[in-house]
Amino acid sequence: MQKPSLPKGTRDFGTLQMARRNYILDTIRKSFELFGYQQIETPAMENLSTLTGKYGDEGDQLIFKILNSGDYLKKVDAQDILKGYKDTLPKVAEKGLRYDLTVPFARFVVMNRNELTFPFKRYQIQPVWRADRPQRGRYREFYQCDADVVGTDSLVCEAEIVLLIRRVFSQLSIKNYSIKLNNRKILTGIAERIGAAGKEDSLCVAIDKLDKIGWEKVKEELIGREFSDDSIQQLQPIIGLDGATTEKIAFLKEFLQSSETGLKGVSELEEVIQTLKFMGEGEEHLDFDVVLARGLSYYTGAIFEVKIDGVSVGSVSGGGRYDDLTGVFGLSGVSGVGFSFGVDRLYDALDELDLFPEQASESTKVLLVHFDQKGYEYGLGLVQRFRKAGVKAEVFPDVVKVKKQFDYAAKKGIPFAGICGDNEIENSTLVIKNLETGEQEILSPEAVIEQLS
Amino acid sequence: MQKPSLPKGTRDFGTLQMARRNYILDTIRKSFELFGYQQIETPAMENLSTLTGKYGDEGDQLIFKILNSGDYLKKVDAQDILKGYKDTLPKVAEKGLRYDLTVPFARFVVMNRNELTFPFKRYQIQPVWRADRPQRGRYREFYQCDADVVGTDSLVCEAEIVLLIRRVFSQLSIKNYSIKLNNRKILTGIAERIGAAGKEDSLCVAIDKLDKIGWEKVKEELIGREFSDDSIQQLQPIIGLDGATTEKIAFLKEFLQSSETGLKGVSELEEVIQTLKFMGEGEEHLDFDVVLARGLSYYTGAIFEVKIDGVSVGSVSGGGRYDDLTGVFGLSGVSGVGFSFGVDRLYDALDELDLFPEQASESTKVLLVHFDQKGYEYGLGLVQRFRKAGVKAEVFPDVVKVKKQFDYAAKKGIPFAGICGDNEIENSTLVIKNLETGEQEILSPEAVIEQLS
Repeated sequence: MQKPSLPKGTRDFGTLQMARRNYILDTIRKSFELFGYQQIETPAMENLSTLTGKYGDEGDQLIFKILNSGDYLKKVDAQDILKGYKDTLPKVAEKGLRYDLTVPFARFVVMNRNELTFPFKRYQIQPVWRADRPQRGRYREFYQCDADVVGTDSLVCEAEIVLLIRRVFSQLSIKNYSIKLNNRKILTGIAERIGAAGKEDSLCVAIDKLDKIGWEKVKEELIGREFSDDSIQQLQPIIGLDGATTEKIAFLKEFLQSSETGLKGVSELEEVIQTLKFMGEGEEHLDFDVVLARGLSYYTGAIFEVKIDGVSVGSVSGGGRYDDLTGVFGLSGVSGVGFSFGVDRLYDALDELDLFPEQASESTKVLLVHFDQKGYEYGLGLVQRFRKAGVKAEVFPDVVKVKKQFDYAAKKGIPFAGICGDNEIENSTLVIKNLETGEQEILSPEAVIEQLS
Repeated sequence: MQKPSLPKGTRDFGTLQMARRNYILDTIRKSFELFGYQQIETPAMENLSTLTGKYGDEGDQLIFKILNSGDYLKKVDAQDILKGYKDTLPKVAEKGLRYDLTVPFARFVVMNRNELTFPFKRYQIQPVWRADRPQRGRYREFYQCDADVVGTDSLVCEAEIVLLIRRVFSQLSIKNYSIKLNNRKILTGIAERIGAAGKEDSLCVAIDKLDKIGWEKVKEELIGREFSDDSIQQLQPIIGLDGATTEKIAFLKEFLQSSETGLKGVSELEEVIQTLKFMGEGEEHLDFDVVLARGLSYYTGAIFEVKIDGVSVGSVSGGGRYDDLTGVFGLSGVSGVGFSFGVDRLYDALDELDLFPEQASESTKVLLVHFDQKGYEYGLGLVQRFRKAGVKAEVFPDVVKVKKQFDYAAKKGIPFAGICGDNEIENSTLVIKNLETGEQEILSPEAVIEQLS
């Protein structure tokens, strides 16, 4: 008899985890929809031609490939084996599991471009798969939760991302966090200004690590990336930039005077803040962080990153504006802005902060408990009345000892027991017991339903 | 530039489809939870050792296999290629995509048996993958939606499945349907009674086709399966059995007198109906169908199948009781009862019957439309007020022609426009226009919010 196990790097979600994940995802989903985003789903399997070449060589290695069905060896001969697995791959596998939600979304937009309404606001919550080396907190299957608006340059989208993040966090009762905001054009401007024009990608990769490794190490990396001493010297005031948003903006307008792109970045940032004002909203939780870089080179405008204070997980949300989502599939001119929530990290953060509400782990609201066949039948007679009033209810389905029934309630986290004893049957009542406090009272079923509704 | 495409047998779900699918799935989910079922999820990838040998030879062929990551050929030599793809398989693939939700659930129960609370009521809504030949209505990726109770023999579970199906259908406004109900033990009894003891599996496979091919063809199949003329003759009254449930039960008690198992089946069926009575429920939509067989040999008690009248799709739900879910993984004695909803078929049925409510396709409730920068800013000032009151609202994010904004609303199925013209700005009002009827009136934002809430 085989002892079953799970593939490395994968996991089951049990009932409590699922209830809590659903609490998070339902909150996010409702907020997305409030802002006019609509959900789509794409298949788990994509053609390898769709996936490869989009994530760099390392990424391509990490895509899970699916063996062609039937005789997957029919195009392979012994010679191929000698050539090695990379050359053989196209002959044995045509499909792979999606690696993220962005490339499938780009494919979706291209294939449906004539039916879609632009600006197209979509969200997508699905698992992705990566053949990474599994380690603590890193899985081979995990959910991504993406929202994008494509087909408009309007900075209202950026402002609304800020509002969406605030709304989700407020609904999740997360109070202390910061939404770091920057603009890729400002980074381009800085590179120009310090005499390193065109090297903004290198600059981003290096200063992206400022938080983790500190300025001295970043300097070493910049030297390694052939930034001159003079450039590094000129970068100094940027690294230490502090103060209110208006002060930072004033400084940058001066500092970036000579860079058209840099100034464009600053004015975009100003417009986002101005749009928030038009919307009756302020700068709460906003942190204009001029060294926020986000490694990804495809961002071209605003970039975001969200961190929760006092938790060990890293950023729980991030995103930015890009110029060309679908160019790789032959449709150019589709720009947009997107961001995503890290569901696993949000889960861990809420867990650390003890912010999951009781209801997020509650299954059934009341268990009808009985002593004998008569009580069991009485319970059966009541349970549907609870359900019809929308109260999650169960009757223990066998005539067993009361202790076993209470154990069931305790293990399942059921907060109330409705006890069906002889007196209750006679008087058409119920002893309703709060299983946390031990308090109990005798009430009519109607009164219990009202109390639990 | 590549033209992107989807793998054969897979599909995207666009915004309208997703909204409608969510309408169905949310309805099912809420009903499951009302009855105390809790959700779990298992990973898409399972070890092939978990999956193979559970679905028959044909099923094993249809499991999608995942290439080992890295050098998947490292254990393969040229000799293996000659041996053929089946012998080579264990060397190149250790994992596969789940084929159904039952086997992963059985694995889950075995791996978590010490933490689970029994009776364990779980539901699971996830895609499964099968390398079937794609054809109309048959996909290689599709959702299953399963609910099971394991660890109890109580027939309350069977009664509750009937109630759950009725509740889901009533919530979905499906009025004309039948829940066919039978008991596998009755079929065993019939086999005994007609002198074909032990051949109930063959009997089931044959009479399962009665609906599709008719009695004459079933007779031929029974002859082919070596049932004697006498057996077939004795089966005749069963095939034509008609009347009220009580009449059928009375007939079977007589007919199955000599079969202990058969009588047990009849009394289980009676108890399910009796339990429904205890619960204050009747036999609406119930159809005791003594020739309902469901091909699957692992059912041992009640069997269910649900058909909607007047639609071209087949059964939309089915299930039954089984004695031994987890024996194959070394844990015996875990019996249970389960059923599932066919999501794709339910979708098609609701579509055919035109039962999707307006809200199931509605995205945003109101679009704020503007003529110029001033109106745009006014709209920005209002949109958050709508959202804070829970009204899904958007403001068109660019200052463009009004026609383009109305087109956007029409294509996205937005039912109301809130027009922000000069008069409205001056008077702090809004022209609220019903985009279906064309009716419009001038109201304060508060009044509009109240109307749309």
